[in-house]
Amino acid sequence: MFKLTGALCLIFGFALLASEPAMVEPKFTAGNELVRPTGYHEWIFLGSSLGMGYQRSGGSNDEPTFHNVYTQPEAYRAYLKTGKFPDKTIMILELMTAGANASINKQGHFEDRLIGIEASVKDVNRFPEKWAYFNFIGNDRKPLVQSKAFAKQTCWSCHDEHAAVDNVFEQFYPVLREAKQKQ
Amino acid sequence: MFKLTGALCLIFGFALLASEPAMVEPKFTAGNELVRPTGYHEWIFLGSSLGMGYQRSGGSNDEPTFHNVYTQPEAYRAYLKTGKFPDKTIMILELMTAGANASINKQGHFEDRLIGIEASVKDVNRFPEKWAYFNFIGNDRKPLVQSKAFAKQTCWSCHDEHAAVDNVFEQFYPVLREAKQKQ
Repeated sequence: MFKLTGALCLIFGFALLASEPAMVEPKFTAGNELVRPTGYHEWIFLGSSLGMGYQRSGGSNDEPTFHNVYTQPEAYRAYLKTGKFPDKTIMILELMTAGANASINKQGHFEDRLIGIEASVKDVNRFPEKWAYFNFIGNDRKPLVQSKAFAKQTCWSCHDEHAAVDNVFEQFYPVLREAKQKQ
Repeated sequence: MFKLTGALCLIFGFALLASEPAMVEPKFTAGNELVRPTGYHEWIFLGSSLGMGYQRSGGSNDEPTFHNVYTQPEAYRAYLKTGKFPDKTIMILELMTAGANASINKQGHFEDRLIGIEASVKDVNRFPEKWAYFNFIGNDRKPLVQSKAFAKQTCWSCHDEHAAVDNVFEQFYPVLREAKQKQ
């Protein structure tokens, strides 16, 4: 009896030791809307940009915003190891206003107020194009609980054409570029 | 015997369940130099800025750099809960060049190349001023393995005078400001 219980105890213990928290997966409503992911401030930060725009004039630089990008730790580690983003990868894009001339700051910009939350999701069975893109700020500027995917031509087409790796603009994120060099 | 082993098994199991990985603590050499922390790309991102400077002309904006700030998950969670940074908090400041006009980007800046690694450490027993500041890029522009603290007037004085919370420029980091509002 002692041997059996002892053995079970060891198995139980090692199973607990080996178990890591599972990757947070995207959640969808019955109507195929993505439920806004939360807790991503504890995910992996991939990089930031300020006032980026894909046309020479107008648009982004009138009121430049910071774009912070996050992904799940497990997606990041998989990319470090394999150079591929696993199925169920979520990328969060937070848009922040660019603050200036506050406190002791006399030049440049810091991140001030959250004004946008967007997401991309890789789900090869759900989306014919593998990736889909979502906005989580409503017309009243408050966060939405759930959101339906943008039409293909709104985000997907440009990501598909110009992003360096699997619809991800790896070329703008040194953390990912370095990972690739190490592979 | 069964009861005793079973009880020990339960204690062992629950102890494992309750144990989280301990907070990464700063390591110092015998000569009181800080060993360069690693693995911080998996820590918590607090915010970014571009070209910030504390004087009206010259300096940072000639070649504006992004500053990304990271801290340990445990230090972040303690701050969320208590509004205080625990002893052994490490903040990492990564300096990145600001890329422009690459790929499809026509406006604004993205993070391009790593050019600086700096750290601040809170260690109330080691430093009379509680916090100390370190640079980890050598004159040859390569990362240093270890580094001695800057003189008090180089970083500490300004942080002490102008930082909103415990030598940390909380006023420039929305993630921390939001945490404070929730407390």
